[in-house]
Amino acid sequence: MLQPPPAEPGMREDEVDTPALILDLDVFEANLDHMAGLAAAAGVRLRPHAKTHKSPVIAHLQLARGAVGQCVQKVAEAEILAWGGVPDILVSNEVVSPRKLARLAALSRLAQVAVCADHPDGVAAIEAAAEAAGIRLTVLVEIDVGTGRCGVAPGPEAVALAERIAASRHLIFGGLQAYHGRAQHQRSAGERAASIAAAGEAAGRVVQALRGRGLDCPIVSGAGTGTFALEAASGVFNELQAGSYIFMDADYGRNDPAPPFRQALFVLATVMSARSGAAVVDAGHKAVAVDSGMPLVWGRGDVRYEGASDEHGRLAVGPEAGALKLGERIRLVPGHCDPTVDRYDWYVGIRAGRVECLWPVAARGAMA
Amino acid sequence: MLQPPPAEPGMREDEVDTPALILDLDVFEANLDHMAGLAAAAGVRLRPHAKTHKSPVIAHLQLARGAVGQCVQKVAEAEILAWGGVPDILVSNEVVSPRKLARLAALSRLAQVAVCADHPDGVAAIEAAAEAAGIRLTVLVEIDVGTGRCGVAPGPEAVALAERIAASRHLIFGGLQAYHGRAQHQRSAGERAASIAAAGEAAGRVVQALRGRGLDCPIVSGAGTGTFALEAASGVFNELQAGSYIFMDADYGRNDPAPPFRQALFVLATVMSARSGAAVVDAGHKAVAVDSGMPLVWGRGDVRYEGASDEHGRLAVGPEAGALKLGERIRLVPGHCDPTVDRYDWYVGIRAGRVECLWPVAARGAMA
Repeated sequence: MLQPPPAEPGMREDEVDTPALILDLDVFEANLDHMAGLAAAAGVRLRPHAKTHKSPVIAHLQLARGAVGQCVQKVAEAEILAWGGVPDILVSNEVVSPRKLARLAALSRLAQVAVCADHPDGVAAIEAAAEAAGIRLTVLVEIDVGTGRCGVAPGPEAVALAERIAASRHLIFGGLQAYHGRAQHQRSAGERAASIAAAGEAAGRVVQALRGRGLDCPIVSGAGTGTFALEAASGVFNELQAGSYIFMDADYGRNDPAPPFRQALFVLATVMSARSGAAVVDAGHKAVAVDSGMPLVWGRGDVRYEGASDEHGRLAVGPEAGALKLGERIRLVPGHCDPTVDRYDWYVGIRAGRVECLWPVAARGAMA
Repeated sequence: MLQPPPAEPGMREDEVDTPALILDLDVFEANLDHMAGLAAAAGVRLRPHAKTHKSPVIAHLQLARGAVGQCVQKVAEAEILAWGGVPDILVSNEVVSPRKLARLAALSRLAQVAVCADHPDGVAAIEAAAEAAGIRLTVLVEIDVGTGRCGVAPGPEAVALAERIAASRHLIFGGLQAYHGRAQHQRSAGERAASIAAAGEAAGRVVQALRGRGLDCPIVSGAGTGTFALEAASGVFNELQAGSYIFMDADYGRNDPAPPFRQALFVLATVMSARSGAAVVDAGHKAVAVDSGMPLVWGRGDVRYEGASDEHGRLAVGPEAGALKLGERIRLVPGHCDPTVDRYDWYVGIRAGRVECLWPVAARGAMA
């Protein structure tokens, strides 16, 4: 079941039922504007990742600021966006099952869609779906630029795969997917710069090799919120697929002492138990993702979120904070924004202390 | 949005769309029967925790085998169960916000409900809600028996709180909530036995003190899947609230070399990328909870789930396993069953290799 919205427009923030996913709209909009400006100044296209927000509403706010489309990881996410009017969607991921590919092919009548492959068998499966649907599907070759997850090695294998796609009557070669996921979370700027320099060099070699065989790469896509400025300046990447910049999280906050984006996303929680030096809030790891560490407590210097169980968050309350009271509200900064959003059915948009809007997390749970 | 079901009855398991939450129905039913038998033999009531399954369907299967009701952690979970016909529900947790308590009071016209408190301010809030609704609410005192999370100390404070409840015209004193969460995951049987011996002693002292003041404890509730036999044999606890026994998970599996329950719950995943010695499946930590460690790979001796990102699971494939093929299905044993279930809208029930049923995870995301 869809959960009922935890608030109504006009309510004060402290009247919002908890746990709730709240969005500081002023900061969120500043983040949207700032990234749009940076991409334009760098002369690269912005195709933000909807795996972060899972919302056609937010996708349209990005498109209105110049984004060329959206990235997704799953066909089910592509469906939600296309049904919500997003016209151009890249599945920045491999899709291999015939049922999923049939859905993607059907969707390509509603929106421009593209998908990735890293193996000839994957290309054959996409080709079969396109042929069965009587359409042509755009396929990018994913190259592994250092993360060691999906992707073909950035050498002759990648070139052969691109040629295989380009030679098919049912497919269109769309370019390269070259996302360096691991680099996003490297702690030092120097490590990140070295990783993306290597990624750009690898991608550039493949682009050149393809050009030598008469194949152009309309899209060379990569970058996340941790490294986008490096890809933007590389001269190789022409699309940025950063997603988290709109919200930020504790993990990205640790990357940079003065990050270019500010924290816009919070989980609002309520103190449900309190004793001297400690308290418990009603948001455990079902309510806030802990895969990248515990959440931070916002604006309460001497309170620390120590540990999460399913429905409880244990807070250590230092002497400066004084005692927390039952029913008191606390803003938590999620350790990791993407999976936290995926726990909720609603964004609660807050401006000047009041609820301004409710937006559905329309692709919540869209994993298939 | 609710996600569409990933299968239809009659399909083969390898036709189920992934990631999917699958339930081995033979094992699941054996687990249900086994716990019902153990509780009956021990002469204690079984009130299984619905935080695990979030499903009125499964609640009714437990009730049909003699369970006296259900536990939940959240008012929103209580609503889903009561609306689905479950007649007796204990919120084994503190609820402090007036809006939530008003919902709980309203629900008490449909089902027998009870809730916990660990502070006089909490009792006052419950009392106000009961008075406003013109009903009497049953309240248990939660005592901290060693977990250090919620709960009042098991001494004079607990007695005073029980007397405060019993003295109210709008409340009924329901007994003690004495769950030792931390003990569930202690690795050695000796540690668990010591923890529950101490918990039973603490709870027993409070029961005696209350009896001395003329207050009976209709419910003394505790126990999880890791320790239930200890509470059942304690002579103090009269209700067991174990939940995970119906499904089991990798963490509980590590507790005991020959656990009394078998693994019934899996995440079905598909190989979406493969190279020599490694593969990637389409189930990352959005699809399988990693708060208690990585999932295990079921029935594939030489394959290990090494790491999860949002939408990807990285597998190390040993030489004995041979190469995995694109599109191949893998069963994963979740590290932690409760939060994994909470990621899905549907259970896919499997018997003899075929889909037998689809059940909604009706309280998925019911956090409020």
